[in-house]
Amino acid sequence: MTTINNHQIAIPTVAYLGREGSYSYIAAVNFFQKTKCLKPFNSIEQVVRAVTKEKAQYGIIPVENSTTGSIFETYDLLIEQKTNIVGEVYLCIHHQLLTKAGVKIPELTHCYSHPQAVSQCRTFLSNHPQLKLIYVSDTATAALQVTKNRHRTHAAIASSQAARLYNLNIAAKNIEDNSKNFTRFAIVSKKQNTQGNKVTLILSVKHIPGSLYRALGPIASSQFNLTKIESRPIIGSLWEYLFIVDFELGNFAFRLRSVLKQLKKHTQKITILGTYDKGKSYET
Amino acid sequence: MTTINNHQIAIPTVAYLGREGSYSYIAAVNFFQKTKCLKPFNSIEQVVRAVTKEKAQYGIIPVENSTTGSIFETYDLLIEQKTNIVGEVYLCIHHQLLTKAGVKIPELTHCYSHPQAVSQCRTFLSNHPQLKLIYVSDTATAALQVTKNRHRTHAAIASSQAARLYNLNIAAKNIEDNSKNFTRFAIVSKKQNTQGNKVTLILSVKHIPGSLYRALGPIASSQFNLTKIESRPIIGSLWEYLFIVDFELGNFAFRLRSVLKQLKKHTQKITILGTYDKGKSYET
Repeated sequence: MTTINNHQIAIPTVAYLGREGSYSYIAAVNFFQKTKCLKPFNSIEQVVRAVTKEKAQYGIIPVENSTTGSIFETYDLLIEQKTNIVGEVYLCIHHQLLTKAGVKIPELTHCYSHPQAVSQCRTFLSNHPQLKLIYVSDTATAALQVTKNRHRTHAAIASSQAARLYNLNIAAKNIEDNSKNFTRFAIVSKKQNTQGNKVTLILSVKHIPGSLYRALGPIASSQFNLTKIESRPIIGSLWEYLFIVDFELGNFAFRLRSVLKQLKKHTQKITILGTYDKGKSYET
Repeated sequence: MTTINNHQIAIPTVAYLGREGSYSYIAAVNFFQKTKCLKPFNSIEQVVRAVTKEKAQYGIIPVENSTTGSIFETYDLLIEQKTNIVGEVYLCIHHQLLTKAGVKIPELTHCYSHPQAVSQCRTFLSNHPQLKLIYVSDTATAALQVTKNRHRTHAAIASSQAARLYNLNIAAKNIEDNSKNFTRFAIVSKKQNTQGNKVTLILSVKHIPGSLYRALGPIASSQFNLTKIESRPIIGSLWEYLFIVDFELGNFAFRLRSVLKQLKKHTQKITILGTYDKGKSYET
């Protein structure tokens, strides 16, 4: 049984990015403690649409990485689509350079991976400039490409799980720039949670001096811990932004309702993206 | 003569991304009112390094786009490298689909461009799914690829200037998702300005409730208009962020010194990235 905010879920269908061995797959297995009923999709957008169109009860999508920052595509989908964040999970990501058996690094000419993985391995890649990068939808698909194609000179950046699954060797181990390389994933659903110790809101404020400051006031004065603020352009409104804020309620969850009321006075529009429990961390 | 904050500059050397006809090139020509002494480079990083290593007096780099948001690479380079923002310029960007003469859209199989241009033309591209995307360093290089290579079925997304320069036809006009599609470019230099009506700061705050709110207080109470706030992860400090804030001084420039003093009390570290005049807008 999986529990989300103390509600037990029998066997949920979970949409995820990539295929078996992708980081989203590993995050989903850790969060839901299941390998059954995980449905693969080729893009973050397809994962979110699977949830909105009820092809899956849950979707798991990467939100931000500790080295490279926010994933804009996810933020824009959270803004556009009618889904709610109902959970989160952190994955400590170690990237491996995978090759066919017996291939040595100097022989390599091409490297398959996902743009996010590439931008987390900049030091390794700048030390191996002969590797021509080919971007694919996810890191497990990158590993599968190397297994399937006939070139011995092609490598992939992917997880050690992908190495085992697709029968590849690890030619270089833990090639991420920073060993504390975490990705935060959000669990999204059509249904909204009512409880949790963390909240994500979308705020729009007036384009006048002090408006964002005043909007943040009720959060700060309630002793909620603002953990993240991200801005995204409002399409069609030049240089105006939506702010997506995350905060932890700590011991002051009872203040949330009154804070939201105060926030309404200081913002043009406010959307509760989700109330959920702060996530646990897992290793890859 | 070019003027930056009323200082006249004889013939500055300006590093820019791409080649003649790239959006950075057009921005540079508009800002400096010169076509001489513009030096092309293949990446934003190379532009910034040209300035820090004194191969160029100025560099021009894209900071954000009104449709797609902040360009993280630029923010990270501004944080890492010792350069100052000394000016800014806005470019209204209209993208064109360029082909060899006489080629019709249904014949096309491939499309060269820069990832930023691609993400500003999502609607057009999703209506033409047969176009396989090939990413290159800038849009003018994309146009040149189409001119140079022998395939009639290859197109580029680039400016109308690039069409004229590289002798290509415009097969589809103004294919950007939003006709108000602006990119903001920063002018960077090793020398710092002392005057201007706009300021960019890098702030780091303590990881405790209310710290960002308190840091923004002096800016808000001085009637400065906070126009942008961006967060970037601090490498090695998990889930801690640097905040890059832009604000306009309006009629209250005289308050800047005292505001900076107050800001120091509420932040761990504060770096003035630049004081400069708010930029003008130009068409492409």
